[in-house]
This record gives sequence, C-alpha cells and structure tokens, in this order.
Amino acid sequence: MGEGRRSVGRDGARAWVSELQPGTEVDESYVVRSRDVRQRRGGGPYLALTLGDRTGEVTALVWENVDALGKVLEVGAVAAVTGQVQRYNQRLQVVVRRAAPVPENEVDESLYVRSSSVDPDVLWQRLEGLVEGVDNQHLRQLLFRILADPGVAARLRVAPAARSMHHAFRSGLLEHTVSMATIGRQMARHYDLDESLVVAGCVLHDLGKIWELDVSPSIEYTDDGRLLGHLTLEVLHVDRIIAEMPSFPDELRRHLLHLLLAHHGEYEYGSPRRPKTPEALLVHVVDLLDSKMAGMIEAINADGDPDQAWSPYSRILDRFIYRRRPSNDT
Amino acid sequence: MGEGRRSVGRDGARAWVSELQPGTEVDESYVVRSRDVRQRRGGGPYLALTLGDRTGEVTALVWENVDALGKVLEVGAVAAVTGQVQRYNQRLQVVVRRAAPVPENEVDESLYVRSSSVDPDVLWQRLEGLVEGVDNQHLRQLLFRILADPGVAARLRVAPAARSMHHAFRSGLLEHTVSMATIGRQMARHYDLDESLVVAGCVLHDLGKIWELDVSPSIEYTDDGRLLGHLTLEVLHVDRIIAEMPSFPDELRRHLLHLLLAHHGEYEYGSPRRPKTPEALLVHVVDLLDSKMAGMIEAINADGDPDQAWSPYSRILDRFIYRRRPSNDT
Amino acid sequence: MGEGRRSVGRDGARAWVSELQPGTEVDESYVVRSRDVRQRRGGGPYLALTLGDRTGEVTALVWENVDALGKVLEVGAVAAVTGQVQRYNQRLQVVVRRAAPVPENEVDESLYVRSSSVDPDVLWQRLEGLVEGVDNQHLRQLLFRILADPGVAARLRVAPAARSMHHAFRSGLLEHTVSMATIGRQMARHYDLDESLVVAGCVLHDLGKIWELDVSPSIEYTDDGRLLGHLTLEVLHVDRIIAEMPSFPDELRRHLLHLLLAHHGEYEYGSPRRPKTPEALLVHVVDLLDSKMAGMIEAINADGDPDQAWSPYSRILDRFIYRRRPSNDT
Amino acid sequence: MGEGRRSVGRDGARAWVSELQPGTEVDESYVVRSRDVRQRRGGGPYLALTLGDRTGEVTALVWENVDALGKVLEVGAVAAVTGQVQRYNQRLQVVVRRAAPVPENEVDESLYVRSSSVDPDVLWQRLEGLVEGVDNQHLRQLLFRILADPGVAARLRVAPAARSMHHAFRSGLLEHTVSMATIGRQMARHYDLDESLVVAGCVLHDLGKIWELDVSPSIEYTDDGRLLGHLTLEVLHVDRIIAEMPSFPDELRRHLLHLLLAHHGEYEYGSPRRPKTPEALLVHVVDLLDSKMAGMIEAINADGDPDQAWSPYSRILDRFIYRRRPSNDT
Amino acid sequence: MGEGRRSVGRDGARAWVSELQPGTEVDESYVVRSRDVRQRRGGGPYLALTLGDRTGEVTALVWENVDALGKVLEVGAVAAVTGQVQRYNQRLQVVVRRAAPVPENEVDESLYVRSSSVDPDVLWQRLEGLVEGVDNQHLRQLLFRILADPGVAARLRVAPAARSMHHAFRSGLLEHTVSMATIGRQMARHYDLDESLVVAGCVLHDLGKIWELDVSPSIEYTDDGRLLGHLTLEVLHVDRIIAEMPSFPDELRRHLLHLLLAHHGEYEYGSPRRPKTPEALLVHVVDLLDSKMAGMIEAINADGDPDQAWSPYSRILDRFIYRRRPSNDT
Amino acid sequence: MGEGRRSVGRDGARAWVSELQPGTEVDESYVVRSRDVRQRRGGGPYLALTLGDRTGEVTALVWENVDALGKVLEVGAVAAVTGQVQRYNQRLQVVVRRAAPVPENEVDESLYVRSSSVDPDVLWQRLEGLVEGVDNQHLRQLLFRILADPGVAARLRVAPAARSMHHAFRSGLLEHTVSMATIGRQMARHYDLDESLVVAGCVLHDLGKIWELDVSPSIEYTDDGRLLGHLTLEVLHVDRIIAEMPSFPDELRRHLLHLLLAHHGEYEYGSPRRPKTPEALLVHVVDLLDSKMAGMIEAINADGDPDQAWSPYSRILDRFIYRRRPSNDT
Repeated sequence: MGEGRRSVGRDGARAWVSELQPGTEVDESYVVRSRDVRQRRGGGPYLALTLGDRTGEVTALVWENVDALGKVLEVGAVAAVTGQVQRYNQRLQVVVRRAAPVPENEVDESLYVRSSSVDPDVLWQRLEGLVEGVDNQHLRQLLFRILADPGVAARLRVAPAARSMHHAFRSGLLEHTVSMATIGRQMARHYDLDESLVVAGCVLHDLGKIWELDVSPSIEYTDDGRLLGHLTLEVLHVDRIIAEMPSFPDELRRHLLHLLLAHHGEYEYGSPRRPKTPEALLVHVVDLLDSKMAGMIEAINADGDPDQAWSPYSRILDRFIYRRRPSNDT
Repeated sequence: MGEGRRSVGRDGARAWVSELQPGTEVDESYVVRSRDVRQRRGGGPYLALTLGDRTGEVTALVWENVDALGKVLEVGAVAAVTGQVQRYNQRLQVVVRRAAPVPENEVDESLYVRSSSVDPDVLWQRLEGLVEGVDNQHLRQLLFRILADPGVAARLRVAPAARSMHHAFRSGLLEHTVSMATIGRQMARHYDLDESLVVAGCVLHDLGKIWELDVSPSIEYTDDGRLLGHLTLEVLHVDRIIAEMPSFPDELRRHLLHLLLAHHGEYEYGSPRRPKTPEALLVHVVDLLDSKMAGMIEAINADGDPDQAWSPYSRILDRFIYRRRPSNDT
Repeated sequence: MGEGRRSVGRDGARAWVSELQPGTEVDESYVVRSRDVRQRRGGGPYLALTLGDRTGEVTALVWENVDALGKVLEVGAVAAVTGQVQRYNQRLQVVVRRAAPVPENEVDESLYVRSSSVDPDVLWQRLEGLVEGVDNQHLRQLLFRILADPGVAARLRVAPAARSMHHAFRSGLLEHTVSMATIGRQMARHYDLDESLVVAGCVLHDLGKIWELDVSPSIEYTDDGRLLGHLTLEVLHVDRIIAEMPSFPDELRRHLLHLLLAHHGEYEYGSPRRPKTPEALLVHVVDLLDSKMAGMIEAINADGDPDQAWSPYSRILDRFIYRRRPSNDT
Repeated sequence: MGEGRRSVGRDGARAWVSELQPGTEVDESYVVRSRDVRQRRGGGPYLALTLGDRTGEVTALVWENVDALGKVLEVGAVAAVTGQVQRYNQRLQVVVRRAAPVPENEVDESLYVRSSSVDPDVLWQRLEGLVEGVDNQHLRQLLFRILADPGVAARLRVAPAARSMHHAFRSGLLEHTVSMATIGRQMARHYDLDESLVVAGCVLHDLGKIWELDVSPSIEYTDDGRLLGHLTLEVLHVDRIIAEMPSFPDELRRHLLHLLLAHHGEYEYGSPRRPKTPEALLVHVVDLLDSKMAGMIEAINADGDPDQAWSPYSRILDRFIYRRRPSNDT
Repeated sequence: MGEGRRSVGRDGARAWVSELQPGTEVDESYVVRSRDVRQRRGGGPYLALTLGDRTGEVTALVWENVDALGKVLEVGAVAAVTGQVQRYNQRLQVVVRRAAPVPENEVDESLYVRSSSVDPDVLWQRLEGLVEGVDNQHLRQLLFRILADPGVAARLRVAPAARSMHHAFRSGLLEHTVSMATIGRQMARHYDLDESLVVAGCVLHDLGKIWELDVSPSIEYTDDGRLLGHLTLEVLHVDRIIAEMPSFPDELRRHLLHLLLAHHGEYEYGSPRRPKTPEALLVHVVDLLDSKMAGMIEAINADGDPDQAWSPYSRILDRFIYRRRPSNDT
Repeated sequence: MGEGRRSVGRDGARAWVSELQPGTEVDESYVVRSRDVRQRRGGGPYLALTLGDRTGEVTALVWENVDALGKVLEVGAVAAVTGQVQRYNQRLQVVVRRAAPVPENEVDESLYVRSSSVDPDVLWQRLEGLVEGVDNQHLRQLLFRILADPGVAARLRVAPAARSMHHAFRSGLLEHTVSMATIGRQMARHYDLDESLVVAGCVLHDLGKIWELDVSPSIEYTDDGRLLGHLTLEVLHVDRIIAEMPSFPDELRRHLLHLLLAHHGEYEYGSPRRPKTPEALLVHVVDLLDSKMAGMIEAINADGDPDQAWSPYSRILDRFIYRRRPSNDT
C-alpha cells in the first residue's frame, strides 16, 4: 500500500465503485463483468476488465502476471483485488497488481448487483396489499392466480423494468409496479374511476418484461422480447389465465386487455391501441410519470459532483437536470 | 299548445336545451346568443337565431311577425319563447311563434351560462385551503398576495380554462386549478418532492388565462392572449409581484418561474422550456393528466345516446371514448 | 314517365346508381340505407332517404304521400321506386313519386351490396390452393385448422378489409388476402426466403378483421375492434389454435406471431413490433403494396368522368391519380 | 512464422480479411486502402494502414523498418504482407513485419474489390433480356439507345448502388436494377399494369448514380452528385436522349419522367413528386422492397458469429435482425 | 330600382363585388365564372351562378326568366346585371332580375380578373433592369435568351405564382419574381455573395410555373404540373437553353441548377436538394420570406371588417393576423 | 530546434493555431484552455493540455519535466511554449518541451480569444447609428435607455450569440445584432412595414443571451439560461424598463413583446408564440437568414484544406458546404 496515499477497502467501510478516487490504493472485492485479452504495443498480452459492484462499474487493467491473474478474473467471478486507481482520459481505471478468488459461499451477492433501494420482500408485501384491496373479485382472483405461479413470482421479484432506461436494476420492475399501483389507486379515487381496473392495469402493465429481459450476467433482451415484446407477452399470458376462469366476465376481460394494449399511450411508442377509457388513460399517464420521474431522480443521484447545480447529461430525458431545491425554512 | 304533442317547459321541469325532442312544443326562457336577419327565397326577411342555456345551444327561426319579435330577441337578452321543435338536416331547430322579454331582475343567470358543476365558492375555499397548506412562507405569501388582488380574484372565479377544449366553461379554470393542486400535492409526497413548489406551480400555471380569454358573451381570445399568451402573461405578473417582496429568495424565484415556463412540457406545445427539475416534471404531467381526463369525461357525458357504448367523437382526444365500465359486484 | 326524357330501369339494363343522369325518369329497385323524417319550411313532414345498390348511393326525397310511402321505405328494405333524377348543389337526388315493396324471396342481394368483383367461391378456392402449397406441415395444418372452423370461414368469406379505405366491400378481405399470398409467394422465391412462413403470414395477417368489423347494415367497428384491434385479435386466436397442436415448434410459433405483430411495419402505424426477419419485412411490404395499389385502382375507377385525365381526389392516398396510360401500339 | 500458432495464407486457401483470427500469423496479399504516418509516443514514426480485400478491411501497423516498407505500402498498391494478427480494443489489427510488392500483371483485381456475388456479365445479359421483353417500341428503343452508349455501359457495369447503404459494392447498381426489373415485371402482370413502363422505370430509376458516385479508390459523391443528385442527373439524361427520338410520344415521355421523379415515394425522402399512377407506385414500392431486403440480408451475412441468433446492429434498418429460420422438415 | 334603398353601380363609382352590401339594388357588369342549372323544390329549373370581378366572387340566383337570361349568362361572358343583394347563411347572394350582354369590344378585361396591383409593364421593366445589372455575362445572356422567347414572355407576364396560396392572381409570378430579385440582390451585397448567381436564381426559381398552371378560366394545374412539377420543368428548360450556349461554363451550370433544385429548402417541401452554397441558401430564404409576407399582407387586406384587430383566418399561415400597427407619431 | 524542419513563431509572423503543420517546431505563446494530469502506462504522470489562440485549439502533451511545466501551464494562463507538432489519429498535437509564463501586462488578450472579425467599437457605433435612425420616439428612447445601462453595455460588447452554433465567439452577439438590424431595416422599407418596430425587434431579440451565457473561460449556460432562457430573460427586462416609461403606449409594448416572443418562428424551436404581424414575421426570417448564413460562411472558412471543393461537415447545417464560386470574369 502506497505511503501517504489514502487506502480504501477492507479496513472499515467498503470501497464502493462509485466512491473510488484517482490516486488512491484499493483493496476490495468486485465482480468481473467483462474481460478482454489485448496486445501491448511493445508485444505481449495484457488484460482489460470491467469490475463492478452494485454502485457502478470501472475499467481495470492487468499489465503484469497476466496468466496467473487471468485465471482468477473470469467473467462472473468475484475477486479480491489490490491495485491503484488512476485517471485516464477523464475516466477512472484500476491498475490491478494482485487478485484472489473469493469463495462462492462467502460471496454476498447483494453487494455486487445494482438493486432497488427497497427490500424486495417489502415491495412484495406492498404488492400483495394492493391486490388484496382490489374490490372486484374477478380481478382480485386473477391477480392472485398470476402472482401465485412460482415461475412468475420468482422472476417478478428480481426483474428490472428496463435494459438501460429507468428502473434498470434488480427488482426495478417490482419497485415500478408498486409505485404505479399506489398512485394509480389514489388518482382513481380522485377522478371517481374504477379502482379495481386501475390497480389491475398497473400491476399487469409490464408483467411481460419478466420474459422480455434476461438479467444474468447483464440485462439483455430475450428472443421473445425482441420478436414479440413485453406487451404481447403479457396479453397472451393474462388471456390464457382468464381462459381458466369460466365466470370471468367478457366485458371485464376486454377492458383489462385494453389497459395493457394501450399503456404506451401513442402509436409512435409502439402502442397498438390508444387509451379509450378513463382507466386506460390513467394507467398510461401514471406509467409515464413514474418512468420519467425515476429517470430524473436517477440522473440527480448519478455519479458526478453532487455539489454541482446540474446533473450529468441524462440520455433518457435528453437534458441536464437541476439539482438545487429551495430550503423550506428560508 | 298543439294537441296530441308533448309540451315541455313552464309546467314543471325546465325544458333544457340538451333535452329538446323533435316534434314537441316548447314554452321556456332562453338567452339569445346570435341573431341574423336573412331573406326568404320568396322575398321578405326572416330571423335566424341561436338560443341557449347552460346545457347547450339550438338554432331558432322566426318566419312571421319578424319586426315585433326582432325587438325582443336581441343578442344577450333573455326571452320567454313559444314554438315548435323540428328536425332539419339531422339537427334540431325551434320555429318560434311568440317571444316575450324576461325582466332583468327575474333572470337567474346561472340557468343560461355553462358552468363548473361545483359551486365556485366551494372551489375558492379549497384553493385557499391548499394555499394555507404551503409550508414555504415566501411562496405562501406570494400566493395570498396574488389571490388577494380583487381584479385577479374576480376574474379567476369565473374564467374558463380554455376556449373550446377541456374545462371550457364558467369557473373551469378554478376547477382545473384546484384539481391539479390537490393531486400535485399527493404526488409530491409520494416522490418526496418540494410540496410548496408543486402546489404553487399548480396554482399559478394557468393564471394568465384570466387575461388570455374574455368570456362575454362567448369565450374569445384577447389581443394580449393571442400576441403574448397566458404563459408569458402569468410570468410577467408573478415576477412583478415578487419584485415587491424584497426578501423573496432569488433561487426560489428562478425555480418557480421555471415551473410556469415548462408546464407545457415539450417545445412543440409552445413550451419555451422543458422541465428540468422533478417538481417541474410533476406540474407538467399533472396538467396533462387533468386536461386529458377532463376531456375524456366531458366526451362521455356529451350529448348523444347515453346508452350507447361509444361517446360522440372527441375532437380534443381525436378518438371515440368507451362508456361501459364493469360493475363492481359482478 | 315523362315525354321526351330518357327513362331508365326495368326495360332492359338495370338503372345502376352509378349511372343515373340528371333530368331522367327512373323506375328501378334499390335498398334503403338511411331514412329521416324532416319538416318542410311551410310545415308538414317529408322524407329524406339514402337509396343504394352495389354501385353506390344517392339521396332521395319524398314530398308527397309521405305516410304511405314511408311504410314501404324502411331502412334495410328493398323497394321498387319511380321518380325523377335531379341535380341539387352539384349532387344528384331522386324525387320519389311511387314506391312498392319487393318481396324478400325476389330480392337478389348481390345487386345491392358492393362486393369484390371476383366470386368469393373462386377466391376461396385460390386460398385453399395457396394453403395446400405450403411445404411446412405445421403451418399447413395450422392454416387448414383455422379455415376449417365454420365460424371463421363464414365471416372470412364476406368480411371487408376495411371500413372506408381500400377493399372496403363484401369479400374485400378475402380478395386482399389471396392477392397478397400470391405475390408474397412469388417474392419469397425471388429472394430465396421461407415460402411457408410468408404464405402463412399473408393468409393470417388481417384475419382479426373478421371480428374487428361488422358488416350489417354498414361496415362499423365492433367493441373488440376498437378496444383490442384486429392485430391482437388474430394473435390471440392463432396462439390459441397453436396451443392445441402439441408438436408445433416453439421457434415456428415465435416467428409466425412476429410476422403478425410486425405487419404494419412502423410503430407510428400501430405496429407493436418492426419487422426483424426478411419474411416479416416481405409480408409488411406486400401488404403496403396491395393496399395502396387497391386504393389507387379504386380511385381510377371511382365515379367521375372516366374521360378525364385525373381521378376524383383520393382521401386514402391524399392525391389525385392520373388515369391516362400510353397505348402499347403507338 | 511463430511456432504453435496457426498460420494462414499462401499455403492453400486464401487468408480472407473476413476470416482473420487474433493470434495467428498471416502471409497474404492485400490492397492498401489508406495510409497514415504517425508519431510514436517515444518518438519516431510508425505507419497506420488499412489493408483490404473484397471481404472487408483491417487496420495494420508497421512499427519497424518504416521507411522501406512505406515505399511498398502506397495507397492503391497490392502487397504481399507477413505479420501477426492481434486484438486491440475489440478490433483486429495486423502488425506487419514484411511487405513485398505484387507485380501489377499478377494482380487479380477481383480478389480485392467487394463486388456483387453475381458475375456482371450475367447481370448484363439479364438486363438485356429484360429490355428485349419490353413491348412498347419507343421505350425499348430508348433503353437500348441509353445502354448502347459505351460511357454509360462501362460505368453501369461497375457502379455501386450506394455509398454506404444497401448494394454498396462493385456492380451493386446493376444487381439492384436487374432484381427490381424482374420483380417489377411480375407485379405489373399481377396488377394488370403497363409492363413496358414498369420495366423502363426500374431500369432507369437509379441510372443517375453512375454519375453521382465515384468508385475509386473508395465510393464517394461527385460534385454533380451532391449538388444535383442522381434523380435529376438521370432525368436530364433521359430527356436529352428522348429529344433525339422525334417520334417518341409526349404522353409517354411525361409518364416515364414521372416514374423517375416519384421513385423515392414521399417528399421527405427527397422525392420531388409522389407517385400518381399505379406504375409509379409500383416502381417506388419495388425499390423500397429491394433496398430494404438487401440491407437485411447483408446484415444477416455480416461479420459476427453466424451461430448467433441476432445479426450485428444494422444502421440502415436501425435494428438487429433475427437469423434463425424454421427448418422446413421439422 | 327600389325606393329607399341604396343603389350601386352605373351611376358613378363601380359596384365592386368586394363592396356589395345586403339589401341594396345592384346594376353593374360582371364576368360569369360558373353556372349550374338546378331544380326548384316546387319543380322547374333555376340558375345558380358565380359572378365576379377582380375584387372577388359572389353567388347569384336566377329564379325567373331562366331560359332567356341563361343564354346571356354563359361561363366566361361579361354581362350587365340588375338585381338585389341579399344575405343568406352569412354569405351574400345576388337575385338577378335582368341581364344583358356587354359587347366584347366594350369589355375592359382588367376590371374582371384579379391581378397584381402593379402594372405588368412596370414589373417587366424592373425585371429587365435587374437582368441588365447581372455582371456575369454568361448568366446575363442566359436570362435574356430565356426572356426573349415570346412563348415564355407571354406566359410570364400573366402567370400567377400559385393556385390558391400567395400571389394567386394575374401577374402574381412576375410580381413575386421581381420582389425576390430586388431583395436577393440587396442581401447578396450585404453578405458579399455572388450577386449574378443570386439574381439569376431568383429570376428562374419559379419559371416552371408558367407551364405548371393554366389560368383560364380559373387557375388549375396542368398535367405537366402535376406529374413533373415546376421545379423539374424549369430545370429541363434552363438546361436545354444552356446546351445552346457552348461557352457556358460547366461549373456555373452546376451551381445555377443547384439553386433551382434547392430553392424549396428542405426535403419535406419537395426539394430534391438542400441548399449547399450561401447563394442557394439566400435564394431559398428570400423565397420563403416573400411568399409568407405576401400571404400575411393578403390576409390583412382580405375581406372582413378592416376596423377589426384581427384578419380572417389565414389558411396558408394557419393563424389569424393582427392588423393594428402603432402610429409613428405617438 | 530540428534541422531541416520549418520552425514557426517568434521570428516573424505569429504561429497561429489554425496554421500549425505536422512535423514543424513551434515557439509561440498560447493560452491554456484545459489541463489534465494522467498516468502513463509505464507509470508516472504526464500532462494533457488544450492550448489555444483566437484561431482555434490544439491538444498538447507534456511527457517530461511534468512538475515544473505544470506550474506554468495553469488553466487560463498564457505561456510561451516550445515543442514539436505531430499528427496523431488524424489530428495535430504539440509535444511540449519547454514553457515559460508570459507576464500579464505583456498579454494582448485579443490574440487568444476568438472574436468577431469586426472591431467591437465599430459594431457599437453601427448599433447606435441604427438606434438613432428609429423614428418612433418611444422605441428610440427605450433602446437608448437599455443600451445606456453600463451592466448591459459591458456584457453586450463581448457576449457571443451562441455556445457552439453560429456566432459562437467574443462579440458575436453584437455582430449578429447589427447585421440583423441592418437588413431588417432594408426589408422593412421594401415591404413598407414599420421600420422602428423591426429595428427595435432586431436589436432586442437576443438581448437575453447576455445573461444566458457566461464566456469565461469557455462559453457555458448560466442557471438562468437553462431554467428561464434568453427569450424570457429579455422579455422580463424589456418589460421592466417599459414600466419605468409612463407614456410608453400599451399597444406598442404588446407589439414589441410579441416580436421577442415570436422570433424563433415555430413552436418546435421553443417559440412560445408564432409571428402574427408582418414585422414579427420579418424579425423571425431575418434571424433565420443571418444565423444560417453565418453557419454556412463559418463552415466554408473552417479548418480543412481550403483548396477542396467541400467544407468539413457542418453540424449546425447537417451537411457539407460547397466552396467553389464561379469567377465573375469568365
């Protein structure tokens, strides 16, 4: 460890990727997200890696001892890494000197995967609470039947809501779903609409994303996701479950499927229908609000100097976000 | 009064314009909204009028006694009219046989002007309640200072929110403002945003419409409305009032003006700024929701057969609206 | 019958609506498409009707004998009508003097409904021939299973392809389907693509229209049509039939559903997916070609003077169409 | 040549650029497409080259013996190159150790230039066959007159159809032209249109590209291409040739020029006219189909792992393309 | 002539169509622009005419003496008309009682055709002055050669610049051309551009409209206009004349044709090229300015109450225009 | 200094950044615009700098003597630099060997800041001349009052007109303003519009940019710029000054504010109003012309080989610009 330099990790607080500083020594465990063997100009190979934890990613380089370290640093592995943080072309990189494997049974996965800031168990309880509050018995039973399927539940607990836009992290879909259903219900009361339909629409509107996206090792589209899309995937699934419920009213099925088909709001956003009922309009606008708001808050919290008035450029919103708020007491 | 024909008005319930039926006799008071003297094909003049009450408008014709009836049926006057309802080219018209002036002191104006379904006094109380709940003292004082101006208050109580789109009726702006501030505050809590800013933004976002539109005898744009627009009118007004409050923080002024400048959301809707703070995004989306929802509910309630599954075509939303909702108990 | 005026109908060729001339007497049978009782300016009712046959529609008026003729001229009835053709405001109208009912068993429906110029039996044979030529056994069996359903077959034989655009007539959907599958197969060969997929995609791409549109008495959208749309209706149906075929390959199901989901080509045309395989691209472009070509040919053949170089304005194509072609022998 | 490393080229199959693998030794001839002298960080120059053959391009570096090798490796020269293939930043590069000139008379140009997969002589024969089949004598003579011009023929045999989109290779324009005329004629028969016009429109629709693009050493726009564009260039040329044919009917000239002016279909694609005849619509849609289909098939065949379900991202189509097709026998 | 009613025409100032008032007697000569024989409801024909002079058009009806008056009131004829001005459905109409032919040699055509407010001889002189000021001898000779063609000159003197937008009147194209060349030259000096090119571009940019539009009896598109368009028509013509000038520099031809091809500025306005030189940009912007300014000034001067602050709705500009200007002396 | 290499700077003409050539030695003073300390691959730091003068910017590297030179080469400092110009990846870079501070009192700032090619004193005189020529006394006094404010004048003399588009240099706003007012006045005369309004609109239309942009050390948006925008900033300022002029006519204020609010022309360009008077239309079009023309001329003069027919790609105009003009004498 270098003299006179601040060293981070192991001895106290964890050295989160988002908090690395140029010039410091680091001694911490990270997951290997990508790995490339390259040729040095002078000949001989070196390793270019992406290391990460749940707070972000950083480039890392191995100049020496390439063969030995390469065996430790496989994609998907968690390794204890010692090295120096440097700045190169405005970005940080870690020059790795040593690396040791972390035994699988010692790995706390929650440290390495970006995840909702709310515990998925808490989110799941809130979701169940919202479903229990659905007055319409057909819709309530439909929702419970869908959530009771272990295959659905397992995926829904961890699925992200997107590959790279808002809520693009573990359990992001659940967080988005619960937030939408909560405010959807409030708004349905305000406008005196059918609460059961609105809550059911919010809960199911992105369900298809559990089949549209694969999350391991990184978030990628599935073949079904690209060729059919989450909207059709959930419409097919919901319709299949309804077919198993003989007393489910046809009028209700039509309205519920319409909520799913119209939740993108406008044709140019891949919406095969536009909202034609107040409930469909509400589900669409609440989705829009929750997505954009998440994108804005993520931009405000993104890496960059938090003292600066403006966030880094947000690609989703195509703008910079202003971070200053007036203090309530002045 | 014709034998064998149903006669409406005077004897019991009022004969609202929206409830006139072809083939009936009518005997009721209406306001004259337009008047044209035309030539009959066979020579000689006749009168073509628009009669109305708060439920709608109907064409009326005077074929005989034109000179005498013409003196009674001036634009803006309220007259008791006797005649027959006919259907012509798919539309109703009243052939007027007799007309008598209604003395001004007997006129109940609320019968003739389309108006919010909520009493403006109730709306005003809600507005004051929302303002009282604003924590930030600068914003609370600013709002009270603006609402305390009798010229502003008088116009705000009666102004419509639009000429022909959503909330295009007496006190429509107040109804829209109170609805937005109510749900804006709920959403601000949900997302942990600055409630004071959001409520202030909702209250002031369309204030300029009190100078943009003139309401008498019909809703029309003013010169200021067309050349400057409500957005600039309210920015100029709010900035002038803030200039009278020496301790008003500059940071707060900048943020508040941004909320007003960005509330249309996108450049193509005449928004000189796009929302760059979560509060500005929220004010914009809540405005969008409340406007479209009002348009949808107005379409559902619009004239046409209420038993039909589909509303008349809604020009604002460019679609037909589905009227059927599932019953909660089935 | 007027002296010196050309009289049409009954005595020889039928007096098609599209061939009526101002100033002639008419004596022919038509179907009543709409009927309105209106008030004359001088008092007393008259009838305003729309009469039609498969070549078009014309306004008709009954000034006298209103009660008696009104009983004959109900909406949906076929009546033998005697009267005079006049021109009013650039449009033709028939002043009806006499009307007699045509007994139902004497009505040849094909005279009154606009229909494909090709016999539906011939079209159906061509469709079966195309399906028999499908090499892939799963797809061939799927298509036969769908077409073997009497409910589907009965609707598909008569359904139009649209409410008011191209192929908006009886059996228009069948004509469009057969045309598309024919050239789709040719193009698939040219580009060495999977013929079976392309033919199946063409046959099924608009199947949902048999539930999207009702054809009697005029072409109107159903509730399912407006709320779910033909694209989703056919995807749900095809998926349900595939679920009954256990050996149907999953890869094939995914590809086929993608063809249906992507056949509108671009998001802004309500396409929830864009074509991501050459077969999907081909089905989309062939649909585009056949629809626009039909619109253009319908415009060229539309009413108006066939000697004129330019067609009436085509609303579908938003332009006038040039009718002159060079003669091959000059 | 390194021990234990696979060596490619010279000894058996050619070492095509598209098949180079990191870590192998290469000994093969390539054309030099670009050359840059750069400074090493430690001082002294090195060469950065682009080497290519008809299958693609690869970066190459000369670190030593720069002066001598630089004389061999001039832009446009073909050289026999010995060196090592490395991977750098996800891309391959060749570190060149030796280079020797290949005598011009030993150069087989077809190895180095990307070209249509069909022999241009075969394409030219097909083109002549299509022209011979044109019934309309004026159009047939016009086409032969244009193709008989040696300047036109020489350019048309080798011109690409684009700089970087579909058919952007030697003889790509000819391939595109023949493909379009072939299916254009089939479709003209299907819709009973004027075959002669359609074939003539297909043959001439991109003729101007022979003056719009220069192909040596890389495909670039000419001044005429940028300032006038291929559409105007071909309209001017065709009109000039027609002016030499006194009996050419004016009606035919107008229609033919319209086909050329309207073949981009919509104003926003730089089309000064939109198609106003069925023949013009057909030429436009067939152009669209053949261009997009070529783009899709090029993406499917593009470099990348052919076993992967998805192609590399296609910039032309703005999407990934699915490579899997169902097997006909399953 | 009716007692007590104001009578207009013949006795003093002309009774211009734009100045007719409801209720007055009229005795004046007009041109017949359209004529329709219609059936009265009670039977028997009547005439519906459009009468006009250079200030506008008015509907006219002949109820009696239809046969005799019909012979006088043929389309294109000028007739002295006596009748009464009435208001019907918010529009004026003239009920004609008498009509007499005006001998052709007594007809002053300039009274009946809407025309530029500037004498075409004056406009032509200005045009020649602008051409004489062109320094570049090739361009100057080209322009004189084109204007010297009697066929071109005769059409250019009277052609409108559009069918229904700006400058849609006799000599409107000449007025627009001279205005553009005048300010184009000023702007070319301001930005130190090539004046000769700019003036030539302005003079020729809409020349093709003399073949695109026919002016008699009303302004309509020609077949060449619809199928080829004015832009291509003028490019073909200018290129043909340049071909007759052997010493005309190729560079100059390319630049000049580019000015014509790019003058619509953007692809979506049917511009096959976008401006790629400062001179091309200038010609485009000056065209835009002169067209929109003319549209705005025409709206300000349009019929409607000139005392009103706002013009009638301008379809070209999609807005109302404000008519009030501040007085310079206040 | 290398033998046989051309050395530039100090000895005669200045070595402007825009004229540096690869391979030469340089000995000249530049301002340091950015500075980054980076790690060499082999370990140890080096400096990556941006050096500039008013003609452009160039990357510079310090490989040795990093500590000592780093103290001289601070951001904002002017230093005399000795080193070698190299080419790396198609771009130039200077490898710095020596650097010495230039004493502040010897720094001629005009050498280092990109600036209008016209002296700001001359531009200011022209501006005052234009204001003196304003006939309308209210507008003239308003303009003088605004320009007399030392805070405004100081900023207006140096402000750029944009951050990265046209006129993005010192005094660029003044240059743009004077150019626009000059041609705005000419055009106002041509169309007989209110010259005073047009000149006032041109002078004030971008005034808010003096608060929207900060110029030191590089051009960046202010918080007010991003949240309120120059359009609103100038409307608020102008309205505040008018409020101090009691006799300023209300009609004139409304019209003038409209000119500012509408100068972006269309909603999608962030214009809260569209031009509704000829004067507003003129200010908008003249702004468009002057901005685009400046962008085009800047592209023509941009770095790159001036002998080449085409400019480097212009991001503002999204195209390449043709540099060749015909010579007037040929």
